[in-house]
Amino acid sequence: MIQFTINKNAFLSAMRIAKQAIGSKIAIPVLSKLKIQVTSEGIHFTASNGQISIEKLLPANDKDAGMLIDSEGAILLEANFFDSIVAQLPDITFTFEEIENYQVKLSSGKSEITLKGQQPELYPMIQQITAKPSTKIAVGELKELFNETAFAVSTQESRPILTGVNIQLIDHQNLQAVATDSHRLSQRRIKLESFGEDFQVVVPNRAINSFRSVFSNDEDTISVFLNATQILFKNSTINFYSRLVEGNYPDTDRLIPDPSLYSLNLILDVADFLHAMNRAKLLTAGLQGGTVKLSVHDDKLMLTVNTPEVGSSFEELTMLEKSGQDIEISFNPQFLIDALRVLKEPKVKISFISNVRPFTLVPKDDSENFIQLITPVRTN
Amino acid sequence: MIQFTINKNAFLSAMRIAKQAIGSKIAIPVLSKLKIQVTSEGIHFTASNGQISIEKLLPANDKDAGMLIDSEGAILLEANFFDSIVAQLPDITFTFEEIENYQVKLSSGKSEITLKGQQPELYPMIQQITAKPSTKIAVGELKELFNETAFAVSTQESRPILTGVNIQLIDHQNLQAVATDSHRLSQRRIKLESFGEDFQVVVPNRAINSFRSVFSNDEDTISVFLNATQILFKNSTINFYSRLVEGNYPDTDRLIPDPSLYSLNLILDVADFLHAMNRAKLLTAGLQGGTVKLSVHDDKLMLTVNTPEVGSSFEELTMLEKSGQDIEISFNPQFLIDALRVLKEPKVKISFISNVRPFTLVPKDDSENFIQLITPVRTN
Repeated sequence: MIQFTINKNAFLSAMRIAKQAIGSKIAIPVLSKLKIQVTSEGIHFTASNGQISIEKLLPANDKDAGMLIDSEGAILLEANFFDSIVAQLPDITFTFEEIENYQVKLSSGKSEITLKGQQPELYPMIQQITAKPSTKIAVGELKELFNETAFAVSTQESRPILTGVNIQLIDHQNLQAVATDSHRLSQRRIKLESFGEDFQVVVPNRAINSFRSVFSNDEDTISVFLNATQILFKNSTINFYSRLVEGNYPDTDRLIPDPSLYSLNLILDVADFLHAMNRAKLLTAGLQGGTVKLSVHDDKLMLTVNTPEVGSSFEELTMLEKSGQDIEISFNPQFLIDALRVLKEPKVKISFISNVRPFTLVPKDDSENFIQLITPVRTN
Repeated sequence: MIQFTINKNAFLSAMRIAKQAIGSKIAIPVLSKLKIQVTSEGIHFTASNGQISIEKLLPANDKDAGMLIDSEGAILLEANFFDSIVAQLPDITFTFEEIENYQVKLSSGKSEITLKGQQPELYPMIQQITAKPSTKIAVGELKELFNETAFAVSTQESRPILTGVNIQLIDHQNLQAVATDSHRLSQRRIKLESFGEDFQVVVPNRAINSFRSVFSNDEDTISVFLNATQILFKNSTINFYSRLVEGNYPDTDRLIPDPSLYSLNLILDVADFLHAMNRAKLLTAGLQGGTVKLSVHDDKLMLTVNTPEVGSSFEELTMLEKSGQDIEISFNPQFLIDALRVLKEPKVKISFISNVRPFTLVPKDDSENFIQLITPVRTN
């Protein structure tokens, strides 16, 4: 039966990494629990929502934990309740002692708390991935790749494949992510330092959101493992498993226009354009499908919104460069806001074919590796 | 028709003071609007939820506003929408211009926004209070008085009179506040510097919450005005009106025990006791009427919670002083948490009559002016 003494904060930090797998919706009751397994390696925390599973090891020799293991074992505890109890313990250290009937006694200062647990055998097995790693990548790079694409996934369950981000390793070294909800698309490519085996998988957006908070150190390098149904991101103490979205991702390459088709290219200041879009969005607020009209006439760029119920707005924007023909085109301002927000460069190049064809946004000085498409709205 | 130019942030700050009267539930549609009236004095903002009404003046000579009034008038605008539009204006100043059909044109930088408004006559009249002020008080003192009592009001609409704080001016100078939900009571008295006419009113808790955020400067002195149905808190630029709760407040003086009845007096450390209660509360969590048992035996004070569904806790607490007989008494830990939180002194005196009679808490070194009562829970 388990017995150990440990620093409260080190214990909580490690536990909470695993606990992030537990969402607000509990698919089956046992998944509201946390599995705590104590071995000579340290304390293993396991939590899952059925789609995402996280295993976190707090190593026995962790310098902040001051861990003293008297006895090994495993137990299940109600995750949120246990967390709130530990957080309120009076002393900086506490003793965790398993007693009869899968109960746990926590002692800290003059306080003694006994909690009901359950036998560890009730917890579902996490399917292990035994393959060799497909590639290695810095956490910060992967987060950036996710950040620049995941916002464009579909939230509609009618086409489940579009609720994930399509991730491919191409030519052993080029990692590409694509997301689309069929109205807009974002495609980003980065060159990895290490080589790997080519792959193509669709990672659910929920897993991408969790990934960002679970792997907090951007400098860290993680290995990526795959099997037919799962992806595993792994560092020295964390195993982060996610189910993949099943199905064939649509061929998005054919959607990217040939640059020879563009009739108008503009260079705009990202911050100015974003602020203008935020204002335009307010005037369309509350209206499904509210649009803003962008008009380019000679050397003027104008943005107009007209929502009879609430009012109208009119704004001139400076074009840093213009080449091509004038246009009038309408679109959902939220799509532009999302697209501009993830641009780190100060200038964006926007290219139009016609007012009924998708237009593209690329960073002015890195147009090769990052492209976004937005479909206009036809208005008459 | 209104026309003025002004600093955006000064305008927003003043407007948002009035806007706090507008809650999330709009009683009648016109109360979602803000009334803006421009006179030679400056800009008057008026907002109301029917119970609370706030008038805020941004004076024409306000040094941060840089106000330039070209033309006076009044108009109604949709409060939240207007706020979000102004907040997004590109420049640090903007021009507000009323145009035909109660429309407003906002110009800022290269942006021009036209909003629909309504004629000011549609806004309900705020009933004015013409009486002389009943008393004057520093904002900070009044906030403290509210803070120490309002938490104990009832949230049950079955006895509306208990949903407010009973405020009395006694002997022209002693301001007393009492709140009770019939399970616990808090009574606080402060001596004012200025004299006033005695009064007794019940102020709704909602108004007390708004008061705290509307009057942000604790050093400020406000005047209190009353009529039969309303209270008005007033400083140089804000009129804060609230309806009073109608009815007779129960005589709470008779509930306060005679000190000769106490069989046990304890002095405890407030912070220690509060932390212990927070832990105890966790073990009763989710259970309506979960209780903690406090046992005093000889020189030991023990707190126990036993909730068969989740677990139990046991904790020893240090008594700084004890005089009287031993006791075992059970109560709702939340009541203790609420009571201890508002104590600013580090030590509390708790006095018991028996395990079925309410017990009292007073600050150890200021026992005259602040008393709280808590009714125990009978357990068998």
